[in-house]
Amino acid sequence: MRIIRYAVGGVSHYGELVSGDRRIARCEGDPFNGLSPTGHFDEMADVVVLAPLERPRVFGFAYNYAAHVDESDRAVPDVPVCFMKPSTAVIGPNEAIVYPADGELVHFEGELVVVIGKEARHVKPSQAHEYILGYTCGNDVSDRVVQRRESAFGTLLIGKGQDTFAPLGPVIETGLDPSSLTLTTRVNGTVMQSASTADLLLTVPDLIGYLSRHLTLLPGDAIMTGTPAGVGPIRPGDEVEVEIEGIGVLRNPVVAEVR
Amino acid sequence: MRIIRYAVGGVSHYGELVSGDRRIARCEGDPFNGLSPTGHFDEMADVVVLAPLERPRVFGFAYNYAAHVDESDRAVPDVPVCFMKPSTAVIGPNEAIVYPADGELVHFEGELVVVIGKEARHVKPSQAHEYILGYTCGNDVSDRVVQRRESAFGTLLIGKGQDTFAPLGPVIETGLDPSSLTLTTRVNGTVMQSASTADLLLTVPDLIGYLSRHLTLLPGDAIMTGTPAGVGPIRPGDEVEVEIEGIGVLRNPVVAEVR
Repeated sequence: MRIIRYAVGGVSHYGELVSGDRRIARCEGDPFNGLSPTGHFDEMADVVVLAPLERPRVFGFAYNYAAHVDESDRAVPDVPVCFMKPSTAVIGPNEAIVYPADGELVHFEGELVVVIGKEARHVKPSQAHEYILGYTCGNDVSDRVVQRRESAFGTLLIGKGQDTFAPLGPVIETGLDPSSLTLTTRVNGTVMQSASTADLLLTVPDLIGYLSRHLTLLPGDAIMTGTPAGVGPIRPGDEVEVEIEGIGVLRNPVVAEVR
Repeated sequence: MRIIRYAVGGVSHYGELVSGDRRIARCEGDPFNGLSPTGHFDEMADVVVLAPLERPRVFGFAYNYAAHVDESDRAVPDVPVCFMKPSTAVIGPNEAIVYPADGELVHFEGELVVVIGKEARHVKPSQAHEYILGYTCGNDVSDRVVQRRESAFGTLLIGKGQDTFAPLGPVIETGLDPSSLTLTTRVNGTVMQSASTADLLLTVPDLIGYLSRHLTLLPGDAIMTGTPAGVGPIRPGDEVEVEIEGIGVLRNPVVAEVR
């Protein structure tokens, strides 16, 4: 099932993509409390696609592909390296990543994103699939200069948490095995990242097991699973695409902040 | 005005404390969209006081009192050191701080907490007061061992983000000048922290100016302003109190996690 959140006539809905992604079966409710088809159909051409989650909690993991750890000149961490991105960083497909007026070195990071379907606490990795609604694409946009400056003091918020720094979408695919998906990131059409989720150091079940051992995951939480090798800068005027096999393409332009 | 969130008969309400904090004028609505008195009064003795915010976004600042920076063996940071605590870490007055079964060295941190009243972006420090609803007490509970382990890789989540690691309350005081308030933290009645918010390195207006320069603050966000000197361990069986002049006492027992 391919779940989409979208706006038509200024009203937002959840729906299910049908007819080869050309039409949407409009639903009532939300994916966490239950979707029920209204019987109305919208044409994809007539709607604005929204981020599949509305102001979610976003958890992120760093250094979770060996090849990216290498390019970062780091040792593989002996502890899961995790952080939060504020809900206000989330944007949807086609929305602009705003390059901050005081931005220094802003990087894209294409990532597989897990969407939690029900409350999860002390979940064993072997049971994690029961708590997953589905998967979407994400871009863990990061200002490397700010990130390094904060990380020197042991924290990370602004480097990854600025408004528009968490594009998510285009859909939540619920029927997907995340263990070996091709992830591709393109900037202006040029492939910058090409990897398989088979190379995740901590797998999706591992990440849910780890987080839920320490805190309660809630329906609608998004977990960004980390980026593979090939990260690099984006600048105003660029267009970034994160594509994951079986999910789709998350495309966002980059624009300069106007103050 | 002293705003309290509370439950009576299993239903939660906002209200205003009256009659020397002995009674509550029950209200409809919430402090962000508007509170209106229902005409009904509850007795404090009959209610359960809840965290003044329901699953808020929680932003925290570290190393924001010089004397605490000293005791941490650090230089004063050249950048604001900030992080998020997950909404699921928040508990109210009298709720138990759960000492994790795998906890290593859990510390209290008494803090002044700012509650945002309206959406704030690119707010100058001189205008910050317009975006503040009020103030409450907070305890930025931290597992130092986990914190250090994560911070070595430049992030911080589990060290400060475990369930029950963000006690807030007991009330939101709206009529308070935060520039010189006495903050006292006691463990089992013994004073451990005693400081003035006059010693904050970054003041409340500075913190709002900094965060809102990079991200959108939302109504109901909580900003923990940092802890003064005197932090130390808590253990199951302890009781921690954070008292701030003009707000009140946030009291929480510590219990061992049962798995």
